[in-house]
Order: sequence, then structure tokens, then C-alpha cells
Amino acid sequence: MLTFIGLGLCDEYDVSVRGLEAIRKADAVFLEVYTSVLTGTTFERMEEYYGKKIIPLYREDVELHPEPILDAAAAGEAVFLTAGDSMVATTHADIRIRAAERGIATRIIHGSSITTAVCGLSGLQNYRFGKSVSVPFPHGKWFPMTPIEVITENLSHNLHTLVFLDIQKDKERYMKISEAVDLLEEQASRTGAKIPLYIGIARAGSKNPAVHAGNADEMRNFDFGSPLHVLIVPGTLHDIELEYLRRFAGLC
Amino acid sequence: MLTFIGLGLCDEYDVSVRGLEAIRKADAVFLEVYTSVLTGTTFERMEEYYGKKIIPLYREDVELHPEPILDAAAAGEAVFLTAGDSMVATTHADIRIRAAERGIATRIIHGSSITTAVCGLSGLQNYRFGKSVSVPFPHGKWFPMTPIEVITENLSHNLHTLVFLDIQKDKERYMKISEAVDLLEEQASRTGAKIPLYIGIARAGSKNPAVHAGNADEMRNFDFGSPLHVLIVPGTLHDIELEYLRRFAGLC
Repeated sequence: MLTFIGLGLCDEYDVSVRGLEAIRKADAVFLEVYTSVLTGTTFERMEEYYGKKIIPLYREDVELHPEPILDAAAAGEAVFLTAGDSMVATTHADIRIRAAERGIATRIIHGSSITTAVCGLSGLQNYRFGKSVSVPFPHGKWFPMTPIEVITENLSHNLHTLVFLDIQKDKERYMKISEAVDLLEEQASRTGAKIPLYIGIARAGSKNPAVHAGNADEMRNFDFGSPLHVLIVPGTLHDIELEYLRRFAGLC
Repeated sequence: MLTFIGLGLCDEYDVSVRGLEAIRKADAVFLEVYTSVLTGTTFERMEEYYGKKIIPLYREDVELHPEPILDAAAAGEAVFLTAGDSMVATTHADIRIRAAERGIATRIIHGSSITTAVCGLSGLQNYRFGKSVSVPFPHGKWFPMTPIEVITENLSHNLHTLVFLDIQKDKERYMKISEAVDLLEEQASRTGAKIPLYIGIARAGSKNPAVHAGNADEMRNFDFGSPLHVLIVPGTLHDIELEYLRRFAGLC
């Protein structure tokens, strides 16, 4: 059996009770370490709390050489851990398909995800979000315009946009809100778009999340602290959303 | 302190370890019982597992007479439990604002949510979803066209649509996939829209979720079993999404 388990947002205590039981009963515990990260803990603390040796998985372990994972799942109970909820991107869909091809049973134990956590933290309604988008670190002359295009399209339909900020796990480099705002404002200046309001969120799921709403300059000057950071570009706000942001996100 | 805790998808074991600890330490435990439900358990089983008497909250308890909740939060540790993740809709934003007005500290402990669970279960990428929509039970002559309008708009941008099905908690009435498909097909016939493919998902987060993809007739004839049901109307599928649906959702 191969069980995909979402560990939730922040540290080793964000896994569900069902997920924790499955990890503690497992014969082999794999942790995907190349797409996301639990910033509130360490590999060692996770091993200690789960009571298991954890095998880290890099991209090539999953995408090119998944046989050890599948062998472990064929021989016993293997768990495949990821931060957030499992398989929110199709990144890991392939290994579930490969397991099924070998006749290995699979299941998913879900975890909390930044996608919905931002709703509670910002007070914005989930059903008013349009398509989400990621802001990648620019490199060389490559400067993608997709983020501002998605935001502009969503704003034209009065929808909120959840903006994921790039993570370069191998370099332990996590894009900050101020960096993302600089990139978005540069994109906006090229297309003539205006982003009147941002909501920045840091360390969702931790004991001290930061949530702050304001214009580009306020985003640049506010100290959001350590990663992970995400942004929302909201459409027009309802009264209750405005009041919530004034109370919990310093909106003036 | 007032702590909002998302209980996750299905039963008492889907809460996070952090959430469970907060419940067990609480002086007062409130459960919101009017917008959603954990279909895999009962009120009594939750009380036994959490080791606490649970006070059920109906709409009027939260929206009209929240004083007992706020009094408990002012006097000690109160937890406010909901199925799924907390405050994904603004339904409970108001009580967090009222708590803040009284100087009561608040925080959120997140839980797994159907919004992202459908990604893992269907293999569809989260960032390709547009705005989501709900299909309400029709009553009298009122027949909302919003669902087909949102779906059509998303399809025109090649985006997936997550379709929530109505829950009438007080009547223990949960819309089935077959009922929702009938309503959507009726709406589509009025606007001339075509929905070529549906993905039905039942009991996400349970040990036996049902996931099935097909056209309207296949949705009507497939036995999805007990609630809760949701639907996805996908945009054009990538190869890996197609293969995933063939493997795990019976797509022909």
C-alpha cells in the first residue's frame, strides 16, 4: 500500500490524527523535499516525533527512479509525505499511476493547504477566488508576464487572485512578499495595469502568522518576517471583508 | 482566547494533532452544525474521542446571539469547531470580528478542505481551477442560472470548475451528484451550453471515496453511495490528467 499524506502547513503537529497513525504504523516513510517545506520544523524533529527514519526524496527520486518507493509499497506499508495537501499539483500524480500499474493499492490522507488557509486569515470568501498564479524568480532576460495577466483577468471579473511565491528548495531561497510586489509592479507598469491593494500573508498555520493589507509601498515596508510568504490581490471587497481586513490585517 | 479549528473532511480523526490538543485543553467546545457536517462520525463519537462535552451551534447562536461563545472565550479557552477548514466562507468572519471588538485574542488552526482534496482525488491541478460555484436545491419557481454561467465562463478560459452541492443540514438533505447533474443539464439546455465531461466525487477524505468521470448519463447511473457529493466540470485535460482519470476515475 502506498499512502500519500499531506502534512499541512507549518510543522510536525499539523498532520491529521489519521495521518500521524498511518506514519507511525508505516514500514517505510518517504518525504518529498523538493517542491515545498514545513518551515516550522526540521527533518530531525519530524523523525523524532513520528518515531521513524524518514527517507528524503529529491525530484529525480520521484520522477526518474521511483522503484525503491514502489518496492517498499509493494512489500508493506509505505507513506509518501508532502507539505500541505497531497497532490494539489500533478507533480505526484505520476507516481500514483505507476503504483497502480504495478497493482499496488493507493490512498490519500489529506492535509491543510495554503489554498484555503488564506481565506480564514484574510477573511476573503473562497468562492470569489479566480485562477491562482505563481511568481517565479526571474533569471537572465526571461521575465514572465503571466502573473499580471492572470491578476488583470481576475480583476476584470472582480475575482481575488491567490499568488504563490517561488520556492527554490535546493538553494533554501523563498521569495519574499516585497520581492514579489516589485516584480508584479514592474509587470503592471509594462501593461498599464494597476494593483490598488495587496494582502500579504506569512507563516500561515504557525502560531504567529503575519497578515497585512495595503498598497505596493506598504507591502515593501511591512516586516513580514520569515517564510513562507504568499500574496492575495483582491477584487472589490464586501463590507465584512473590509472590516475583517481592518481588524486583522491593518487595513487603513 | 477563541480558537477556530477546522476538523477536516470526514470524521473525528481528520483534525490536526495541533487542533486535537487545543480541543482537549479547552474550557468550552462549540461545534458549528448548520453549514457543513462530518458525515463519517456522530456527535457522540466526537464527544467521546475529544473527551469533551460539545455545545452545538445553530445559525442563530452564531449570527444573532453569540454572547455565550464570546463570554466563554473571554473567561478561558474556547474552541469553535467547523468541518473542513475554518472560515473558508465569511460565514464566521463576523464572530471573529466581534471577539476582537471585545479584546478577545483569536487564532485559527487549519484543517483539510474539499477545495484541495478534489485535486488529489481527481488528479486535476489546483492552479487550473477558476471560480467555484454552488448548486442550490430549487424551490418554487426560483431556478438560479449562476452555476451554468460560471461553468461556461470557466470553460471559455479552459479552467476547471469545482461545483459544491447544496446541504440542508436541518433536514439532513444532501444533494446527490445525479440531482446536481439534472439541474446543470437543465440549465445548459436553456443557455445552449454543453458539458462534455463531469467528475463526481463522494466521501472525500474517507476510507472509501468514490471518484468517477463521465458524461451526464454516466453520472446519473453510477452509484456514488452516501454523501457528501461534489462535482468538477473540467476544462481540457492534459495527458497526465487523462491517464489519472482513466486509472482512478473509470474514464473510458
